[in-house]
Amino acid sequence: MNNELILACDLGGTNLRMATVNVKGEILHLVKLDTPKAKHPAEIAHLITEAAKQCRTAVRRFGTVRALAAAVPATINAADGIILKSPNVPALDGFRFSSIISNELSLPVILENDANAAAIGEHAFGAAKNFQNAVIVTLGTGVGGGIIINGNILRGINGTAGEIGHICVEQFGAPCGCGSVGCLEQYASATAIVRLVRELADEYPNSVLRGKTQITSFAVYQAGIAGDELALEVFRRMGFYLGAALADLVNVLNPEVIVIGGGASAAWDLFIKHVREQIRRHAFREPGETVKVVRASLGDDRAGILGASKLAFDQMI
Amino acid sequence: MNNELILACDLGGTNLRMATVNVKGEILHLVKLDTPKAKHPAEIAHLITEAAKQCRTAVRRFGTVRALAAAVPATINAADGIILKSPNVPALDGFRFSSIISNELSLPVILENDANAAAIGEHAFGAAKNFQNAVIVTLGTGVGGGIIINGNILRGINGTAGEIGHICVEQFGAPCGCGSVGCLEQYASATAIVRLVRELADEYPNSVLRGKTQITSFAVYQAGIAGDELALEVFRRMGFYLGAALADLVNVLNPEVIVIGGGASAAWDLFIKHVREQIRRHAFREPGETVKVVRASLGDDRAGILGASKLAFDQMI
Repeated sequence: MNNELILACDLGGTNLRMATVNVKGEILHLVKLDTPKAKHPAEIAHLITEAAKQCRTAVRRFGTVRALAAAVPATINAADGIILKSPNVPALDGFRFSSIISNELSLPVILENDANAAAIGEHAFGAAKNFQNAVIVTLGTGVGGGIIINGNILRGINGTAGEIGHICVEQFGAPCGCGSVGCLEQYASATAIVRLVRELADEYPNSVLRGKTQITSFAVYQAGIAGDELALEVFRRMGFYLGAALADLVNVLNPEVIVIGGGASAAWDLFIKHVREQIRRHAFREPGETVKVVRASLGDDRAGILGASKLAFDQMI
Repeated sequence: MNNELILACDLGGTNLRMATVNVKGEILHLVKLDTPKAKHPAEIAHLITEAAKQCRTAVRRFGTVRALAAAVPATINAADGIILKSPNVPALDGFRFSSIISNELSLPVILENDANAAAIGEHAFGAAKNFQNAVIVTLGTGVGGGIIINGNILRGINGTAGEIGHICVEQFGAPCGCGSVGCLEQYASATAIVRLVRELADEYPNSVLRGKTQITSFAVYQAGIAGDELALEVFRRMGFYLGAALADLVNVLNPEVIVIGGGASAAWDLFIKHVREQIRRHAFREPGETVKVVRASLGDDRAGILGASKLAFDQMI
């Protein structure tokens, strides 16, 4: 197995990362591109195959690439390799990913939901490594989730389990890309942080964030660290809703650990106390005191890639 | 195994049922009592041991009682047989159930959460029989839940998993016995139905339920069937919140079936359309269309008893 390699692809709403990974979880070559704002899936497929060829060529002397494993921000049919619904990259809705990419590269292709892949990565190599029952939440462009039960990822009957970002936290809340309203994703994603800044800006005339045309969740975090009241209120709301949804999961799943990762988790210092307060407020005492709430350790750029490669190696054995 | 028997006890907020059950799930003898409004756990323990002795004596010619298995409306520590928190029978908080009952009866004692027991019962003998991934909700004095994943009950790390009744459906909602606010239990239990009638009565001057001092959830159901607008509004709200919480579970667990039982499920005809509407509104399309939502088939009086006995037989084998 030592010279067998996997092409692992993490397709996010913002970036597309392709890597060659060995069985130890070491990344031998990495390509990072912007995810195109494509109308047609062929455009994204072309970018993926080009990046895959580049990664494959680059590692030729280290070993043989045996499969491509892709993590995508979508509900999927894993058995048939089809993307079902991809709220943040809507061009991919209904795309027959595995068969098309497999034809282009003459490789087996494994498809996984990005949050499940990140969960598998954190469980195999990261912050959930020594836990058999874990919830992994990824705060990115959207909010993804993966659930580990007795050491295995929970897939459910259609393979769509783990959609923590679509727990309803406000019955008449903000509309969501999934078609529902009040989803956690509308209060705890990087996108939501920026929207909340715009919604609340009028109430904070002294905020440094007022009137800025380009705001990122990281800029909101920096403003919060510097004491900006608008930014602090946004992270209070984010932590309030994230904590409410996680308290539900503490009551329903009674996990050992909740791992929080993704780009928007950079603001950890500003939202985590509100998350913990909500778990204390809403969860039953014993499971609420038992659960550890920790930051993801692999980083947003590696969890999905390492999880996807782990999945491929497990399927090859 | 054919002449081995289990004493199975279902201790509810309203009734205490004790039965002798054989391995086929047949109830050979049943005792039903009112649950005492006790201040001290010894009073309830005494009632349980007396009922157990009566059931044991009654079946002497059919076989040998090998264990007592009890389903209680509480979070429990199964390994040590301790009741942790029992919101609807608070006298039992912290009670060392198994060691005390075991001493009295000289029998092994198995303790289980009532909703888990009902879930195991429905999975072994009832509406979830042929499904490997199921959610079972019990609408009684409180709202209990049990989750079957890959054919096994989900316990979590402390054994407290499955507390579906304490999913938060209103962030600033009605206070709950568990210490939180806005729990599903406050909108979908028999107790909640009666409270909602009282809260809304002033808006419905023509309702037959106005001014009644003793109202039961079944009387509210009967009024609704007869077209009473207050009763219909109460069940609309109940279905709205129950459906919202179940939609969360559809997104998180992607189960094959959701089984709804318990006394308050008698009003099925009046709330189920609102439940289904909420699942359509909030859940992802594929898992929402896949999941079957069905009534429990064992009946409130048998699910917990048969589940507890199944658990005991499984542990004896």
